[in-house]
This record gives sequence, structure tokens and C-alpha cells, in this order.
Amino acid sequence: MPKKQKAVVLLSGGLDSTTCLAMAKNLGFDLYALSFNYGQRHVSELAAAQRAARDFGARDHLILDLGLDKIGGSALTDQMEVPKASREKSDDIPITYVPARNTIFLSYALAKAETLGSSDIFIGVNAIDYSGYPDCRPEYIAAFEKMANLATKAGVQGRTIVKIRTPLLHMTKARIIQKGIELGVDFSKTHSCYDPSDDGLACGECDSCALRKQGFAEAGVADPTRYGHG
Amino acid sequence: MPKKQKAVVLLSGGLDSTTCLAMAKNLGFDLYALSFNYGQRHVSELAAAQRAARDFGARDHLILDLGLDKIGGSALTDQMEVPKASREKSDDIPITYVPARNTIFLSYALAKAETLGSSDIFIGVNAIDYSGYPDCRPEYIAAFEKMANLATKAGVQGRTIVKIRTPLLHMTKARIIQKGIELGVDFSKTHSCYDPSDDGLACGECDSCALRKQGFAEAGVADPTRYGHG
Repeated sequence: MPKKQKAVVLLSGGLDSTTCLAMAKNLGFDLYALSFNYGQRHVSELAAAQRAARDFGARDHLILDLGLDKIGGSALTDQMEVPKASREKSDDIPITYVPARNTIFLSYALAKAETLGSSDIFIGVNAIDYSGYPDCRPEYIAAFEKMANLATKAGVQGRTIVKIRTPLLHMTKARIIQKGIELGVDFSKTHSCYDPSDDGLACGECDSCALRKQGFAEAGVADPTRYGHG
Repeated sequence: MPKKQKAVVLLSGGLDSTTCLAMAKNLGFDLYALSFNYGQRHVSELAAAQRAARDFGARDHLILDLGLDKIGGSALTDQMEVPKASREKSDDIPITYVPARNTIFLSYALAKAETLGSSDIFIGVNAIDYSGYPDCRPEYIAAFEKMANLATKAGVQGRTIVKIRTPLLHMTKARIIQKGIELGVDFSKTHSCYDPSDDGLACGECDSCALRKQGFAEAGVADPTRYGHG
């Protein structure tokens, strides 16, 4: 049997990244999960990430402390109020956007991949049912991949071509949920809420909760999320 | 008088980044210096960065702790031996290369710039007298800039075009030294060595010390560096 390829998987512990982890496993990769403590208000999502890494047999799960809270500029890391989901479509990027977050996450993943000799980085970004963040769009991911292949020793030496793998990019939230269930994801253990209660229960009202609820409804699957308020 | 533009300046405390800081000041920018504690073996360069930020009147100097030592893969963050400078030209990338370092540094600078409403990020990379790191090449910087303009809220809204400014890119080390002196850099306070002694003195023998020594010789300027051994 050929040696398994290694993949670095960015894992927040949310619905999308956990499904992405399951898909990477299903493709036969050896999983190296990577999560970040970046001053987000609630670390309950890190506990969810740890469970997911364990459940899917990740070979390694590295949790790095970042200093994003020192940079500020987002309702997810600052003491701003997280808004409730708007039913109206808007071109505005919400205040829950964390400046350059996916760029920083992918940069660390690139460092980890190069150190491992891996050429596959998985990130569960989605450009359909998403909050409108610029760093979830296909053109952004393509530009990051191009940059990554100029940034690294392996890239320069032509040994490895880094691939930023985004299996969820064009899937609806309902389809992601169906795929996750098919691959054994227990969504009761995943965490999506931007504004959970002190004991980690989802608010049911923020943009992320609204997308999640709608996804379960459209998938025709009972929503296992425990909502704490709202 | 028009309001000064803000610039984020990556500042390691070395000869190049300190000159880059002086050049940004000379261009009339309000300086926001950004340094990293990334598990490098010696933090004497952070002390040099703090002095430089103070000397050039930076409005702010943020030092962020990164977790690069947890990722490994470099003689600068691991317990590998730092090699002495080779006199032979080589296409190999040295083991002092830190995987994806500049990508991670620039990603944080991008986050900081977006938060500040700044469109100018300065980095003192150089593609002439340098150690051959892939993430110091012009094509890498151009790819990062392109990605950065797809990554951010400001970029998407067309409010700001991020510019990665690399004033040293095509300068020889000798020219950088001349420029620094012209702008008031005190090079006795800058730190370049990859392998300093416990009390922070330069080794005089690593690749970085060799480039620095040669630069002073070619510039016809007395080298103010205190070498501890070698």
C-alpha cells in the first residue's frame, strides 16, 4: 500500500471545517489539523475542533496562539456587539469580518505544510451560503495559491506544488450538511455561533446561526444544535 | 498641511528593516512598526527594533508573539546548528530559511493596515545581497500584493489598494548602508546575526554577518558592529 499523503486541514470546529476534515479523510489523506486561538470571544469552538480532530483520527492537531486581538478591527475579537442576522441581502461586509484572518490562517498552514513535506492544504471556505467575507471567494483562494507557490523553498525547487483545497467552495449549506452526515460528522458537536452564551450555547440569531438553521431546514435534517437564547 | 498617510513597517531590528523604516519616515509617512517574537533563538533583535522605532518616532510599535517555533523547520527557530557563510554561490536555500515567514509577517501587516485604514506596507526585503530565501524575490512580493487586494474588505470595496513597498529590493547591501547613514540610521544599534552569543554579540561568521561585513567594506564605511566571536 502506498504511503498516505499528508494534508494540513484548517479546523475551527464549525460545521464547515469539520465537514472539510471528513472530506480530506475520505480522500485518503493523513490529517494534520491546525486551529488557532486568536482572541475570539469564545473558545468553545476550540473544544469542538479538538473533538473533531480526535473523532476523525487526525495524526496531529496543533493549536496556535495568535495575537489578532491585539490588532483588533472585528466584532469577533473586540468588545463590539455581534449583530443579529439581517434578512435583507447586502453588499456590505459585516463587522464580524476579522481583517486578513484567512490569509493569516493559510500562511501558518503553508508553513506547516512545508515543514511536513505536504502539498495539500484544506480550508472549508464557502462562497454560496456565507457571510460575504472577501477572503472566502474563489479569486482570493486562487491568488493565495499562486503566491504560496512563489513563497516556499519547495515551490522554488519545483519539488512540491502547493494546492489550496476548498471542497466546500461551491456547495450550499444544505449540501454541506448532507455530505457531512454521509461521512459521519456529528453536527451536535460542531460550533458555528458568533455570539454564544457563557456556557457555549449558540445564540440562534447571528448570521452564522441563521445560515446554519436554514441549511438544516433545506437539507431536510433535524437541527441538532442546542440554542441557548433567542 | 494634509494629514499624514499611515504606513505599517515590518521591523526586525536588522540593518535592512531599520533602513526601510528610515526611508518610510523620509517619505513622510506616519509609522506603525510591527515586530514579531517568533521563537527566534535570540531576542536581542527585538531590543534593536524597539530602539529603532523610538529613534524614528514611530507612532506605535506592536510586537506580536507568533507560534512559529511550534511549527519548526528552521535553524533560526529550532535547535539546529547555524552554518557559517559559504563562499561558494549555491542555488540551495539555506537551513536558516523559516518556512513561510515573510508570508506570515506580511499577513499580519495586512491585518494591521486594514484596521488602521492604511494602504502602505513596508518590508525591507532585498533580492541582491541576500540569503536566497524564496520570499524575498520580486515575483513573490507581487503575488502577495495581488492576493492582499483580494483578501480585504477595503480592497473589495475599492476604497484602498494595498501596496507592498519594498524600497530596498534592488539595492546592494553597500547602497542600503549608504542610504541608511544618509537618513540617520545608527548601524551600531542594528542587529543582523543569525547566531549571536548569549550576550547578543554578532558571530561574524554566519551568512547574514558575512553579507553585512561585505556591505560595509563595499560602502567604504567603518563597520560599527561589535563581533563577539569568530
